[in-house]
Amino acid sequence: MNLQEVLDRAGSTVQLLRDSQLGAYIYPVVPSEFTNFRREVKAWQDTAALFDQSHHMVNLFISGKDALKLISDTGINSVAKFAVDTAKQFVPISPEGGVIGDGILFRLAEDQFIFVGRAPVANWLTYHAQQGYDVDLRLDQRSPSRPYGKQVTRDLWRFQIQGPRAWEVIEKVNGGTVEQVKFFRMGHLTIAGEKVRTLRHGMAGAPGLEIWGPYETYDKVRDTILEAGREFGLEPAGARAYSCNTLESGWIPSPLPAIYTSEELRPYREWLGADSYEATNALAGSFVSDRIEDYYLNPWELGYGSFVKFDHDFIGRDALQAIDAAQQRRKVTLAWNHEDVGKLLASPVDPDGPGYQFFDLPNANYGSSNFDSIVDADGNTVGLSLFTGYSANERKALSLATVNPDVPLGAEVRVIWGEPDGGSRKTTVQPHEQFAVRAIVSPAPYSVMARDSYHAGWRTAVSV
Amino acid sequence: MNLQEVLDRAGSTVQLLRDSQLGAYIYPVVPSEFTNFRREVKAWQDTAALFDQSHHMVNLFISGKDALKLISDTGINSVAKFAVDTAKQFVPISPEGGVIGDGILFRLAEDQFIFVGRAPVANWLTYHAQQGYDVDLRLDQRSPSRPYGKQVTRDLWRFQIQGPRAWEVIEKVNGGTVEQVKFFRMGHLTIAGEKVRTLRHGMAGAPGLEIWGPYETYDKVRDTILEAGREFGLEPAGARAYSCNTLESGWIPSPLPAIYTSEELRPYREWLGADSYEATNALAGSFVSDRIEDYYLNPWELGYGSFVKFDHDFIGRDALQAIDAAQQRRKVTLAWNHEDVGKLLASPVDPDGPGYQFFDLPNANYGSSNFDSIVDADGNTVGLSLFTGYSANERKALSLATVNPDVPLGAEVRVIWGEPDGGSRKTTVQPHEQFAVRAIVSPAPYSVMARDSYHAGWRTAVSV
Repeated sequence: MNLQEVLDRAGSTVQLLRDSQLGAYIYPVVPSEFTNFRREVKAWQDTAALFDQSHHMVNLFISGKDALKLISDTGINSVAKFAVDTAKQFVPISPEGGVIGDGILFRLAEDQFIFVGRAPVANWLTYHAQQGYDVDLRLDQRSPSRPYGKQVTRDLWRFQIQGPRAWEVIEKVNGGTVEQVKFFRMGHLTIAGEKVRTLRHGMAGAPGLEIWGPYETYDKVRDTILEAGREFGLEPAGARAYSCNTLESGWIPSPLPAIYTSEELRPYREWLGADSYEATNALAGSFVSDRIEDYYLNPWELGYGSFVKFDHDFIGRDALQAIDAAQQRRKVTLAWNHEDVGKLLASPVDPDGPGYQFFDLPNANYGSSNFDSIVDADGNTVGLSLFTGYSANERKALSLATVNPDVPLGAEVRVIWGEPDGGSRKTTVQPHEQFAVRAIVSPAPYSVMARDSYHAGWRTAVSV
Repeated sequence: MNLQEVLDRAGSTVQLLRDSQLGAYIYPVVPSEFTNFRREVKAWQDTAALFDQSHHMVNLFISGKDALKLISDTGINSVAKFAVDTAKQFVPISPEGGVIGDGILFRLAEDQFIFVGRAPVANWLTYHAQQGYDVDLRLDQRSPSRPYGKQVTRDLWRFQIQGPRAWEVIEKVNGGTVEQVKFFRMGHLTIAGEKVRTLRHGMAGAPGLEIWGPYETYDKVRDTILEAGREFGLEPAGARAYSCNTLESGWIPSPLPAIYTSEELRPYREWLGADSYEATNALAGSFVSDRIEDYYLNPWELGYGSFVKFDHDFIGRDALQAIDAAQQRRKVTLAWNHEDVGKLLASPVDPDGPGYQFFDLPNANYGSSNFDSIVDADGNTVGLSLFTGYSANERKALSLATVNPDVPLGAEVRVIWGEPDGGSRKTTVQPHEQFAVRAIVSPAPYSVMARDSYHAGWRTAVSV
């Protein structure tokens, strides 16, 4: 069976995905906590953290003479200045202009790339590669969500060393100065005698590196970094801590791939399997529409407007050109009200249940893609909250969201937490009531909005 | 290095263990959640649950002509009627009368036993076996806490099928009637063509089975049970759900092995390694005494008074005979006040931190052995709270505790949550303040105490 048949049988795509039995989006293999997630989260702000990104993403290795053409034909990004040894945040879109997904695309050589991210972009590239491109592909699949004692093997390990003391760790590991090249430039490092690849990265203004190498050297490299990092307070981040770092850095990991509707994409849906990400992913949250298109997000809504370059032809170009960028929703962070979140957190012991949808710490998401309605004082939907959790650095629940252009920073809005009608049939959902959580519209990446810049009702505030 | 040297070097045994860097006691390998822990917990009350106990305990295989003698010489339990194909909850104690630990001891044949439990009892039996007993031992070590993608292999898998519909699942799997033999009697069952061993068990009055077999048949047996159980609402319980089932059933899994002080046990401490459970386990909680002996528990304090049988000679017999059973603390469940627990749960988003020690759901313990002080209205310590978490069935935080004989059921006491002086150096602890949580002394296994049976201050109430 293929995805199209699954959709045809289901009738409602929205209901199919809202009732998915897949469960939560899991950050697998990496232990849940090494010390405790609060300490691990504080490490990336105060000292340094070692993120292990080896397991929750796919690697798609792309090579061959048409590799760059495939990328150029499918991405909103310009490849005019895509130098070898640099990387891009690659964003393909559907013919209708909806984002398929995103991820990091590394250019290793003239005709050699790696895409790293969730499955939908890898699937999209793989399908299109088969439409007459002279490329070779190899997929290194995401690790199993529940390995249950079985051995896990990947092509590569992938770490990040981040935080204010990250560079000291990096230079100690390397045994000498490491040049702080520009963001997203690649290089090399020697760790425990192994030459590994690097990507200049950073967090909260502090320089860091993403590094990767063959899976066989996983333990050796990791042990060496941790040992070297001890004096700088380097902490390994477990899966709980890792999954919420994005709340502070402002990247939305989980758009719904916009592939369910266009008639032009029917052959793609017939190519995708019944067990594909697209067929099984779980759609969660209070925002419910009959139309799956209402869940699609365009590049501007996700903060990728600056990546859109009309210097090349690409799938979806016409659709994007028809869009008025100034009228699009924009990416923000929502800082959730602590009293309201306190009620959510205390709800499990409320003797008069059913209470609210469980707000797990630090990752409160309960689907692969999460869509909570954001409403203004009048109850109008003014945006969508897309990724929710807890920052131990901020001592706050935060979510990444996209809001209407007229919603100012500092505005107080409400996020509807929990699903309507007692909740969907997802395995992550128990019967519950909804709760309208107050939240302050804030910048992404997050920084605190001064208290005097907002009021109880922003519509009132801005219209005065 | 051995344990004795570790202790000598540390100076204070209490401080050594309170500052252990081991981390939380982990229920490893089994996935954290299959659906969500609330649903999995409800399953054992409403339908049926499949517990996977394969990984968090050791198996010690004991055989040989002195096997029974070893057991008799070390256990408080009588072996006078220890029939083949039955099991006992085996409890060895120190010469001073403190519990070493406990676990299930299966008698497979005249001279063949398996002990299943935490490491301290297995260590104790192994050491004593070497003092002239004609026995063969084989240890199947607990699975690694953080396998991190490495393969895990054990000698046996071990499951329980529990809940009101458990017996229907068991009979369907077996393809016919299964006799409900007496509690802790063993038998056989055929699953997927494999003959497996069974132990009659039960939960909340409903009959269930513990079953085990060779690790090679793990997946096949598990898949068959889950498939058969679907129509009865059988749910696999993940590690989060499993770890708190004991709050409802009333078994205290985590006494501190009473082996640190007796001069007579010096050779044992010199035999135990510096990496043994005894040397590395983490002591957590608000109860702090300079004397490690104050953490020892005798059989009555843990609810094992009825196991004590003076029909045989055993290590610690004299010490137990000197104890007045009627004056000992007794095991109870504490039902924690929902308003107070709500404050603990909301504390992570309290903007005026440092807040309270993190109360993780559903397992709130942050050490291998947990000792929280229980105080009365006058601030006197009247007991120790030993294992804390959340029951989704009761919608309550519960703990298992041992309290003074004069503390009545229905009394309101306070549990001091969190460690003094901002907390110890354990990896599970962040700087925090203490909080005195109201709790109602209740039976173990737990059942609700009627509201009118208790008052704000039980000392007042009972003395009136």
